[in-house]
Amino acid sequence: MCRWMAYYGDPILADELLFQPVHSVIDQSLHARLGPNTTNGDGFGIGWYGEGKTPAVFKNILPAWNDRNLRELAGQIRTPLLFAHVRASTGTPVERSNCHPFRYGQWLWMHNGLIGGFLRLKRDLVMAVDPALYPAIEGSTDSEVLFFLALTFGLADDPPGAVARAVGLVEEIARRHGVPHPVQMTVATSDGECVWIFRYSSVGPPRSLFYSTDITQIRDLHPELESLRRLGPTTRFVVSEPMRDLTGAWNELPEGSYGVVHDGRYDLHAFVPVHAP
Amino acid sequence: MCRWMAYYGDPILADELLFQPVHSVIDQSLHARLGPNTTNGDGFGIGWYGEGKTPAVFKNILPAWNDRNLRELAGQIRTPLLFAHVRASTGTPVERSNCHPFRYGQWLWMHNGLIGGFLRLKRDLVMAVDPALYPAIEGSTDSEVLFFLALTFGLADDPPGAVARAVGLVEEIARRHGVPHPVQMTVATSDGECVWIFRYSSVGPPRSLFYSTDITQIRDLHPELESLRRLGPTTRFVVSEPMRDLTGAWNELPEGSYGVVHDGRYDLHAFVPVHAP
Amino acid sequence: MCRWMAYYGDPILADELLFQPVHSVIDQSLHARLGPNTTNGDGFGIGWYGEGKTPAVFKNILPAWNDRNLRELAGQIRTPLLFAHVRASTGTPVERSNCHPFRYGQWLWMHNGLIGGFLRLKRDLVMAVDPALYPAIEGSTDSEVLFFLALTFGLADDPPGAVARAVGLVEEIARRHGVPHPVQMTVATSDGECVWIFRYSSVGPPRSLFYSTDITQIRDLHPELESLRRLGPTTRFVVSEPMRDLTGAWNELPEGSYGVVHDGRYDLHAFVPVHAP
Amino acid sequence: MCRWMAYYGDPILADELLFQPVHSVIDQSLHARLGPNTTNGDGFGIGWYGEGKTPAVFKNILPAWNDRNLRELAGQIRTPLLFAHVRASTGTPVERSNCHPFRYGQWLWMHNGLIGGFLRLKRDLVMAVDPALYPAIEGSTDSEVLFFLALTFGLADDPPGAVARAVGLVEEIARRHGVPHPVQMTVATSDGECVWIFRYSSVGPPRSLFYSTDITQIRDLHPELESLRRLGPTTRFVVSEPMRDLTGAWNELPEGSYGVVHDGRYDLHAFVPVHAP
Repeated sequence: MCRWMAYYGDPILADELLFQPVHSVIDQSLHARLGPNTTNGDGFGIGWYGEGKTPAVFKNILPAWNDRNLRELAGQIRTPLLFAHVRASTGTPVERSNCHPFRYGQWLWMHNGLIGGFLRLKRDLVMAVDPALYPAIEGSTDSEVLFFLALTFGLADDPPGAVARAVGLVEEIARRHGVPHPVQMTVATSDGECVWIFRYSSVGPPRSLFYSTDITQIRDLHPELESLRRLGPTTRFVVSEPMRDLTGAWNELPEGSYGVVHDGRYDLHAFVPVHAP
Repeated sequence: MCRWMAYYGDPILADELLFQPVHSVIDQSLHARLGPNTTNGDGFGIGWYGEGKTPAVFKNILPAWNDRNLRELAGQIRTPLLFAHVRASTGTPVERSNCHPFRYGQWLWMHNGLIGGFLRLKRDLVMAVDPALYPAIEGSTDSEVLFFLALTFGLADDPPGAVARAVGLVEEIARRHGVPHPVQMTVATSDGECVWIFRYSSVGPPRSLFYSTDITQIRDLHPELESLRRLGPTTRFVVSEPMRDLTGAWNELPEGSYGVVHDGRYDLHAFVPVHAP
Repeated sequence: MCRWMAYYGDPILADELLFQPVHSVIDQSLHARLGPNTTNGDGFGIGWYGEGKTPAVFKNILPAWNDRNLRELAGQIRTPLLFAHVRASTGTPVERSNCHPFRYGQWLWMHNGLIGGFLRLKRDLVMAVDPALYPAIEGSTDSEVLFFLALTFGLADDPPGAVARAVGLVEEIARRHGVPHPVQMTVATSDGECVWIFRYSSVGPPRSLFYSTDITQIRDLHPELESLRRLGPTTRFVVSEPMRDLTGAWNELPEGSYGVVHDGRYDLHAFVPVHAP
Repeated sequence: MCRWMAYYGDPILADELLFQPVHSVIDQSLHARLGPNTTNGDGFGIGWYGEGKTPAVFKNILPAWNDRNLRELAGQIRTPLLFAHVRASTGTPVERSNCHPFRYGQWLWMHNGLIGGFLRLKRDLVMAVDPALYPAIEGSTDSEVLFFLALTFGLADDPPGAVARAVGLVEEIARRHGVPHPVQMTVATSDGECVWIFRYSSVGPPRSLFYSTDITQIRDLHPELESLRRLGPTTRFVVSEPMRDLTGAWNELPEGSYGVVHDGRYDLHAFVPVHAP
């Protein structure tokens, strides 16, 4: 199981997001509390929008808590939109190309979860990826394949619809192969303008996912907290696990739903995979 | 362009093969002489047969000349059959899964060369790999795909025939896509019993490849060389580039040919790709 | 806090020591049970005696549970004496030169613990190292400095005495600097013939350390365990944390003591630091 | 031998400095032209002034030409002052703590060259470092020790004087040990306000060092070059090796001299080591 964090708000130093919080996603690489594994030390990655339209990614196979370069960079990167992910591999090699977030054009993608029976389904899934996109796949993870299926189904035009069709396809192919529990996921994806978040599981409860309450409301609830004043009014966090125990600050995204994060708002909807006719 | 070396003979310390020779393949990672690039610093790997039937591999993305662990291990590995490869990437990421030699079951495979227009051909090539083998592909190189095509076409039963069909398929698919110069290769592969070597190019001269003269003959030619006495009578070297300037020691494998190295013998034959009817 | 394991007995495949046991030291890199931290993912190392007199070391900054090369090598290294260590840094950088075991000539050394207030004491400690040995120090850890102090005080001639004087010096220098709790340690060191183990703390309880009961006795206690039959009669394990819950198999080394492991015997003695007059 | 580049001018994207020039320092990691070695693949580092007063450093042991993260970051870092260094080790380990530039407080330091007979002199040199600074030394290179000697002698107050005393001390200690050619160096150091550059050798010619002509003059000489228009009027480059063959663009810093780069000016002076009375 992995952990991730998405931030969208006023430009902020990455250090404020990654190293200042009591239980940041970097801390969660070593001391995660929710779920069976406390350690997510199989590589990490950050992606952010800054200079130019294309997001940059910094990824490495070292555990996040150990990477000195990450700490250095965090003090220099100022961005309104940052993805951060710490990985616990479900089997595929620990290599940079298998770290999240994945990037294609202006899109970033990160995932906590897995595609059940992935190695049995992989060939059929990869063959469903648009041949024009296929050569861009560099790694060997299920997460990256899911991303490229979403791109294939039009992520750039209709992200929720594309993800719904991608997940539907995985479930369909899994059904054909007799794999009982194909999709376990929380996903965040962005084009630099909006952030879409998803929480879904084919069977049973999905991985945890929380989104933050409006910052002004949290400030009212906790006027004593200095750190909150450094956050702008449109600040939005979406996290696998709360970065801090703060009453009223975190809301669980309902199972089987997705959200659009934009302009400081969350628009929440039901998420229903679309199976091909 | 890469460099590789295969050794087959009496059990010998890997250090004798990798670090003692004047111009070993490790030296060739920094000072290669043949071909346009002197540096092959995009990772390296060794594979060898020792304990058990399955060969072991030690691969890393650091330049071979820099890896202290390689030096340590070389002093401890005693083997009758060793593959060593230093990489110069032709575009795919520098990651452990993209280093040679590749391994599947008892087979090792290493390659110097490339598949032209690989990204355009990749999907068709990968789809021709046996679906049962497909999930075992971990990297993103042309070399690994060529290996899995050879496995698909029966490397375990008829290595030269399988490689001929694999190369033939690449050429056929390249022709369909209008890629003019598909295959450039020297390849070594082994199951621990024999070593098969190949030297071929679809168009124009292939990469260099040399095999060593019988050790007793080299000793007669160079009685003053102490180091030769540490090599057993069945010693055979196959190299991209001679490890030492020694008159009479090296023979160029003819273009468009393959060899079977076994029992201290080389059986050389023409190599002709087989195109499907 | 770190974890380590020393094996001394009949030649055995490293894989039997590192990956077969239920709760091997590799498992302890991710799921340690004794002590505050479960994760020891700041690099690892193994050292072993094989070809030649000088032990070889294989060390890397990746977490031990992630290093594929380690798994490969473990299946090929056959040795009568192996040290294995997984690191949790107490502040110094995660780099190969800071991984254990350290080596000097025929000596290996690994340590679980720390020198309190090390940065304040470091200069004085390093200056006490024999000038002829000083240039061989490559890293920046307290563990390596303690090793070189032991070498300075004659580790090669009288290991227990040398370590006693080294620890005594650290305590003396710490006293001068007003550092209250200077030495926390379990140490294993070897010259390839014997293994010396130490368990000591200047103040309060030292780190855990266990040594194994005679193998024939463990076999009598647990006749049903197949894996025990693969171990020779002189098998001795010394571990930070038992590799397996097995009644009667593990004995705690008393606090403030050291042992000499040789010929399948343990000779245990009190360990008393020697302070210069 | 290493290669380095210092830039001081208007804020600019690091990518313009590291990857756009025909023969940038990154290209020089693989294809250096001056000096005996073409490859500087033993790690690299960049240091720059951006957010806050303390410069950030990004360093890694991979060859610079291979590090994807470097390419990513270069597209995001905008800075008026950047140091970049590619390393060819003169013996000390290839580890992050041995990569340049080194940093202490607001100071950056990088070096091409070596201290002759370093291992013999190391203890005496390190002991001359201010005890308060000593614990900050993390690596094992001569370059880092020279930096800390300069800091000891007051780099923060009088950089040229401090470096002159540091070099003088090295030469004095070398004389005592009978080392004939102690100091070979080009050095760049900065506090974020000025850049000081040094070119000196105890005996014989020092490593190459060039500084750029005033940008407006180069533009007049080469009006056709589009890329020059992206550089501000105070642009100053100091390089081991010119990044581009451009008549009139590069000036060799005289042997045995130093320069102060500030406000688009170079103030050049003789550099004479100061030996303690």
